[in-house]
Amino acid sequence: MSKTNPGRFFEDYAIGQVIRHAVPRTVAEGERALYHALYPARHALYSSDEFAAANGLESSPLDDLIAFHTVFGKTVPDISLNAIANLGYAEGRWLLPVWPGDTLRSESEVIGLKENSNGKSGVVYVRTRGLNQMDQPVLDYVRWVMVRKRDAAAPAPEPVVPDLAKVVDAADLVIPEGLDFSDYDFELAGEPHRWGDYAIGEKIDHVDGVTVEEAEHMLATRLWQNTAKVHFDATNREDGKRLIYGGHVISMARALSFNGLANAQMIVALNAGAHANPCFAGKTIRAWSEVLDKAETDAPGVGAIRLRLVATTGDSASFPLKGEDGKYLPEVLLDLDYWALMPL
Amino acid sequence: MSKTNPGRFFEDYAIGQVIRHAVPRTVAEGERALYHALYPARHALYSSDEFAAANGLESSPLDDLIAFHTVFGKTVPDISLNAIANLGYAEGRWLLPVWPGDTLRSESEVIGLKENSNGKSGVVYVRTRGLNQMDQPVLDYVRWVMVRKRDAAAPAPEPVVPDLAKVVDAADLVIPEGLDFSDYDFELAGEPHRWGDYAIGEKIDHVDGVTVEEAEHMLATRLWQNTAKVHFDATNREDGKRLIYGGHVISMARALSFNGLANAQMIVALNAGAHANPCFAGKTIRAWSEVLDKAETDAPGVGAIRLRLVATTGDSASFPLKGEDGKYLPEVLLDLDYWALMPL
Amino acid sequence: MSKTNPGRFFEDYAIGQVIRHAVPRTVAEGERALYHALYPARHALYSSDEFAAANGLESSPLDDLIAFHTVFGKTVPDISLNAIANLGYAEGRWLLPVWPGDTLRSESEVIGLKENSNGKSGVVYVRTRGLNQMDQPVLDYVRWVMVRKRDAAAPAPEPVVPDLAKVVDAADLVIPEGLDFSDYDFELAGEPHRWGDYAIGEKIDHVDGVTVEEAEHMLATRLWQNTAKVHFDATNREDGKRLIYGGHVISMARALSFNGLANAQMIVALNAGAHANPCFAGKTIRAWSEVLDKAETDAPGVGAIRLRLVATTGDSASFPLKGEDGKYLPEVLLDLDYWALMPL
Repeated sequence: MSKTNPGRFFEDYAIGQVIRHAVPRTVAEGERALYHALYPARHALYSSDEFAAANGLESSPLDDLIAFHTVFGKTVPDISLNAIANLGYAEGRWLLPVWPGDTLRSESEVIGLKENSNGKSGVVYVRTRGLNQMDQPVLDYVRWVMVRKRDAAAPAPEPVVPDLAKVVDAADLVIPEGLDFSDYDFELAGEPHRWGDYAIGEKIDHVDGVTVEEAEHMLATRLWQNTAKVHFDATNREDGKRLIYGGHVISMARALSFNGLANAQMIVALNAGAHANPCFAGKTIRAWSEVLDKAETDAPGVGAIRLRLVATTGDSASFPLKGEDGKYLPEVLLDLDYWALMPL
Repeated sequence: MSKTNPGRFFEDYAIGQVIRHAVPRTVAEGERALYHALYPARHALYSSDEFAAANGLESSPLDDLIAFHTVFGKTVPDISLNAIANLGYAEGRWLLPVWPGDTLRSESEVIGLKENSNGKSGVVYVRTRGLNQMDQPVLDYVRWVMVRKRDAAAPAPEPVVPDLAKVVDAADLVIPEGLDFSDYDFELAGEPHRWGDYAIGEKIDHVDGVTVEEAEHMLATRLWQNTAKVHFDATNREDGKRLIYGGHVISMARALSFNGLANAQMIVALNAGAHANPCFAGKTIRAWSEVLDKAETDAPGVGAIRLRLVATTGDSASFPLKGEDGKYLPEVLLDLDYWALMPL
Repeated sequence: MSKTNPGRFFEDYAIGQVIRHAVPRTVAEGERALYHALYPARHALYSSDEFAAANGLESSPLDDLIAFHTVFGKTVPDISLNAIANLGYAEGRWLLPVWPGDTLRSESEVIGLKENSNGKSGVVYVRTRGLNQMDQPVLDYVRWVMVRKRDAAAPAPEPVVPDLAKVVDAADLVIPEGLDFSDYDFELAGEPHRWGDYAIGEKIDHVDGVTVEEAEHMLATRLWQNTAKVHFDATNREDGKRLIYGGHVISMARALSFNGLANAQMIVALNAGAHANPCFAGKTIRAWSEVLDKAETDAPGVGAIRLRLVATTGDSASFPLKGEDGKYLPEVLLDLDYWALMPL
């Protein structure tokens, strides 16, 4: 019998099943440096131990998306090796900062199952938790994927579709212990705009563009130990292209959003996300944001801002999103809805 | 007189000569992160401090091949700058784990010399030792290379061909102090297959493929301070290609072998190795393994498994190796014979 | 009003103005590993904690050019976002080693302003200081750039052109505390040539070449948080090329200069520098050096050597520099004038 991992098929999931994903990973200064080489990341809290300390943290945590990618990457062999599509995210919350030296692992619980009408595939909903070496949850999110059936003749399970919040309630956001933006240094952070300067409905063109290379997205995807072969194997498609990991686009767009949102320091919730179109090497990624909501928090000087982050291979100045048919425009790569923390 | 290093020619070597190679190197978390970005490395012992601690080690050592590449890289300016071919490896043993913060240097002793019948080149055999900052040997191996003569008229030395073991005896394998696989967590490691599940003669297709890029192999080769110009200078060949460092293929194949050999955690010996054909950017590397032997060890729960690891640019499912003429098939890049440690 | 950074125009600068640049950065082992993967850097003092300790330093500092690039990168959003050309450097001095874990930030003072006769742009001179987390200066240099005017009709300021030293006086070089080359190990360092072996006027062809890739120069430039869009956005130019950050060429040439100048360990002053021609991916960089001057220092066993470092995409053996018209030859990328420390 083959010893290699064939991945799970739709029939292999059951409601309530808990999957303890393999290969825990210690993340440290090396991962931080690579993250900053791969993306034009400049949010000061993740760049400087002194800046972080001046805002109440012990030192500079690893970028929130390092935690996300690492936790996500561990789930790939169990959840998305036979996935046809990554359909959505919901109820994502960052629960604790990840510090250099922490070891992360992931667990997922199957919370929904619905076979497609074609009988060849189905949708699997999982709630994934990232845990550190003290078994403390650092991240929690739901994602759902369309997975192939091994055998089309296998009976369909009773459909269960979880009732997911459209948006994480601002009251449920977890503010890192000690975070205090009362003495926030806007000059060192790079922009003067504070929470009060942003209006709901406001759109920001982040202006800059980055043309992506095969070597870069593969370095990134491997770093998160994401092994989905579509990202690495050029013989997998007729055109010889490698599909870029959607998370690479998330990190690129988030880093580009510094220009206009330099003070949206910490990502604390992922409300929703769609990988609207595939991305390939040679494309130039641009980004724009829209302020969807704002909320106060209990932490000193800290406000929450809900942002739509859109990545596009076209012109970001025209804020492309959907066509008249309600479908994403072909140049749109990503439509992400998240909460960030910002100085008041 | 020129101040640059012309490299050594065949006449510059003498039996018993000891070469202390230049530029010691401190390796740390940064090298680990880069290794994991360059290769799809996932063996849990090298990914997680907690996993390593649960198996009796102080923390997660640096990947065994980081030690190999670093020690090897130091020898290049003295051994292989004028080499025509890297002919073979033997009697390689890992003697101590390398920990983040260790400083490695290399020494080689010339143990064999044999001029070729054409009088233009000869074969040099060296035993190379890698040493840490406490002058403890961490790695020991023999390699032989074909080296140009400076002057074809120079007299041939008395031929000395060392008597090298075809395989490192299982009794001579060095098990890292404290290693204990009694409570090995197969679920966290990623596969259920234990030492007892592998049969001598069994072949495993590792399935996944990675298409290699110029930027990646150059990043890797520089990281090991390997300066052989064929790897970096596109003007060196008429077709503008850069020859990929053979060690890049070793690390890629070893990382791919996780899929089917996730529990072959530690490399402890290099019995033999052939770089069967050159590799160039744009090729897609696949790998397969064959179980050559098995042995017990004195360490609790720890078995040794001797593996052939073959890298190919073709289809790994057909286990390509040699043609009817006994020569390596053109798609075969690497034929490596090593011992690894695995939970019983 | 737009929240993105439009950069400063010529009218936005005034003599005596001090700009505190944004986004301090903690640099550590990860940055070191990436530097060594991006460039063939091998100077032993920056490669080995033990080698550094044997020469009187606490441990191995980060490469001098990591400090330079990081400090320089911070100035880009304020100084060179609307720059037409980076015109020159002067009076650069490294004042303190940068250790892993240090946090760097930058400040610049405007020390010169001169509108061009076309009324569309002007030259801005700034003195930039890099500071560590204890507010100690680690680096100090002057650079001048040609910057666009926002409004051609804006009145020209009173011209002020600073009186800059052509060369940093050898007596003003700052030797790191404790540095002692009395017991310098030439064998471990990689070359036998000491300070006394170099003659003023001597030229050294560094022989080796490295062909540069898009992925590599972008990784490097992002690592220094240099955000100039010309380096990243292929849609910025009609030919789809990305202009390579001049600092990438500096680091590549300096690393190549190991072959012939392995003992020119520490860069302590930047006397002058010209980015003679732009560099693009696919070019092969070679380097040569000329000994411009030598000086003694007060530190035990330590001499200073003033070097011209030239990077070229052509043949380095012919020492290309300028044509009969006094202009740089088209294959010359860089002409750098610096002081380094070398064992006597």
